[in-house]
Amino acid sequence: MFNEMNFTCPPPPGYKGKVQMGHGGGGRMSRKLIRELFIREFKSASLMEEHDGSIVTVDGVRLAFCTDGHVVSPPFFPGGDIGSLAVHGTVNDLAACGARPIAMSSAFVIEEGFPIADLERIVRSMAAAAEHAGVEIVTGDTKVVEHGKGDGVFITTSGIGVIEHEPAPTPRNVKPGDRVVISGPIARHGLAILSIRDNLMFESDLVSDSAPLWDLVSRVYAAGIKPRCMRDPTRGGLAAALSEIAELSATSITLDDRAIPLAEAAKNACEFLGLDPLFIANEGLMLFFVAADDETLLLETLRSHPRGTQAAAIGRVDSGDAGILFVEAEPGGRRAIDIPAGEELPRIC
Amino acid sequence: MFNEMNFTCPPPPGYKGKVQMGHGGGGRMSRKLIRELFIREFKSASLMEEHDGSIVTVDGVRLAFCTDGHVVSPPFFPGGDIGSLAVHGTVNDLAACGARPIAMSSAFVIEEGFPIADLERIVRSMAAAAEHAGVEIVTGDTKVVEHGKGDGVFITTSGIGVIEHEPAPTPRNVKPGDRVVISGPIARHGLAILSIRDNLMFESDLVSDSAPLWDLVSRVYAAGIKPRCMRDPTRGGLAAALSEIAELSATSITLDDRAIPLAEAAKNACEFLGLDPLFIANEGLMLFFVAADDETLLLETLRSHPRGTQAAAIGRVDSGDAGILFVEAEPGGRRAIDIPAGEELPRIC
Repeated sequence: MFNEMNFTCPPPPGYKGKVQMGHGGGGRMSRKLIRELFIREFKSASLMEEHDGSIVTVDGVRLAFCTDGHVVSPPFFPGGDIGSLAVHGTVNDLAACGARPIAMSSAFVIEEGFPIADLERIVRSMAAAAEHAGVEIVTGDTKVVEHGKGDGVFITTSGIGVIEHEPAPTPRNVKPGDRVVISGPIARHGLAILSIRDNLMFESDLVSDSAPLWDLVSRVYAAGIKPRCMRDPTRGGLAAALSEIAELSATSITLDDRAIPLAEAAKNACEFLGLDPLFIANEGLMLFFVAADDETLLLETLRSHPRGTQAAAIGRVDSGDAGILFVEAEPGGRRAIDIPAGEELPRIC
Repeated sequence: MFNEMNFTCPPPPGYKGKVQMGHGGGGRMSRKLIRELFIREFKSASLMEEHDGSIVTVDGVRLAFCTDGHVVSPPFFPGGDIGSLAVHGTVNDLAACGARPIAMSSAFVIEEGFPIADLERIVRSMAAAAEHAGVEIVTGDTKVVEHGKGDGVFITTSGIGVIEHEPAPTPRNVKPGDRVVISGPIARHGLAILSIRDNLMFESDLVSDSAPLWDLVSRVYAAGIKPRCMRDPTRGGLAAALSEIAELSATSITLDDRAIPLAEAAKNACEFLGLDPLFIANEGLMLFFVAADDETLLLETLRSHPRGTQAAAIGRVDSGDAGILFVEAEPGGRRAIDIPAGEELPRIC
C-alpha cells in the first residue's frame, strides 16, 4: 500500500492522505509519489530510468517518447505562454534523451468561459513554436470542463523523437570524474512567472528563457561529443535535477557556486524574494554530463551557438556520498544542498 | 481570425467569444473548433485526416500516434474508472488506426486535496488495464493544481502503435458500396455514467462497455480482412462518428435502425431520460467499414471473439448526399440525422 507515513515532510492538518501541492513540485515529495505509486504500479523498466523521456524500440528503430502536462499560471508571461512552453518542454525532453523531435500531440482541457481569443493566441503560439523547433503537431484532443472545475487551460503534450546516436544519454550513465556543464544563465523562467503574479508583483525586466534546444544539442553531437546524460532543469531548478541524477547514478555532484551563470537582474530578484536561484525553474537550459576530456570542446561548441553563448562548466561528479548534491562557495568549503520536500513555486510550468 | 459568427448554434448570453461546454462535446461545435482553429493553425497533413490517431513514418517504420484527455465525472463508475478508461481509450484509438499498441504515456493533473487512496486505486486500475491490453506505460508526468482549480483528477494518455497492415484504415478510404458493421450493443458507457450522476440518479444495472479492442481488431486482420476504416464511437456516440466519416469520405451513410444492437435496459433508460442512444458514448465498441464482399466474413470473425458476440451489420455507404447520415426505420423510409451542435452529456470521458 502507498505508505503516507514515509513522507519526510508531514502533511499539513487536513491533508493527511490527500494530494498536496508539493506532490507536483519536483522536490522530494513528488519524487516519492512517482516512485512509490506510479513506478511501483506501472512496473515499467523505462519508467524506472526516471529520465525526461523513455526509449522505445520499434522494429529496430530507437524512439524517445515523453509527456508533460502544463498548468502554468498565468498562461501568458514575459517571453512566452503556455502554448510555446508546452512545445519547448516536449522538444527539450526529447533532446535530453538525445532524440531529434519528429512529432508531437497536444491535448487541451479548457475551462468553460475561457476567451476564444486567448485560446487562439495560445494555439498560434504553439504552431509558431513547433515550426521554429522543426516538430509537427500531428494529433490532438479537446475537452471542456465546467466553469470552476478547471483553471483557464491545461495543455498536455507528448512527443516522439528518433535517437540518432548511441548510447542514448541517461542518468545512470553518469560516472565519477564526469564534468557538469550548463548551457546558460539559470532561474529566468521561474522569476519571469513570479514577476507577473498578482500577489508577488515586483519590478523587473526578467523574461523566461523558454526555448527549444534540439538545435543546440545536435551541434554537440555533430562535434563528436556523446554526452553521458542530459537534462533540462525545469521544476525544482538546477538543484532538483542534479540531486535526482546524483541519486540515480549513485554518485555525488559538487557545484562551483561562483561558476554558475546568473544574470544580475535574476540575482537581485532572488535576493528581494528570498529565493535560492538553484531551485528556480528553467525552460531553455540544458545540463550536460560529459567525460572530463570532452569538457573544453563541449564549452566551445555550446558557445558557438546563439543559445549557448554563456555556457559554463559548473561542477564535477565524484564517487562516495552517493545521491548528495554539494555546493562549493570556495575551494574545499562545500555544503550539502537540502532539496525541498514540497513546492516552493507552484504552477511554474 | 476565428469566426465565432459561423457557429450554427449561437452562444448563450455572456458566452459569446468564450469556450462553451459544447466545444468539447464531439458534436458540430467541437468539430468546427478543431477545424477552424487547431487544424488551420497547426497545418498538419496528419491532423487534416481527422482520424482517431495520426500515422508517423520514422526510418521506414509506420507508427500510429494518438492522444486523449480524460475528464470523466465521476472518476469511478460501473464497469471502470478514469484510469482504465484512459488506457482503453488510447488502445482503441490505436486499434482504429490498425495499429498494435506498443507504449503509452500518462500525464496526471490532480486537484490539491484529492484522496491519495483514490489516486492509488486509479493508478492500479490503469496498470491492470495496460497489462490486460498488452501495452506498457513507459513515461508520465504529475502536476498538482490548487483546490478549486481542477476537479479531482484529469488524465491525458498518448499512445504509440505499429501499423502491421497496409493500407492503414482511414475515413477518407470509405467508398460507396461499403458496409458498416458494429462490434456490439451501443450506448452502454454514457448510460453507466449517467446512472450514477447525482442529478440524474436512476435505477439500472447498466455497466460501461469500456474495454480494449486491439485483440478483436487483430483477429479481423488475421482473417484476411483489411477494413477501409475503423473508429471507436466515443463522445457523440454512433451518430457523431458516422456523420464525421460521411463528411470526410464525401459519401452518405444509411443506418438500418432495427439492426443496431441495443440492450433492453439501455433502451429503457434512454426512453426514461429522453435520450437518443445513437448520440450516447461507447468505450468498448469498434465501427468497421468494409467492402460488401467482406461483410459476412467480418461478422463471423467478430462473433467468434468474446467482445464481438453481438456484432451486427448496421448500414451501407452510398454516393450522393455527401456528408449526410440517414436512419432507415423501414425499407425506403429514411430520415437525415441532425448532429447536435453542442454537448448533450458533458464529461462522459
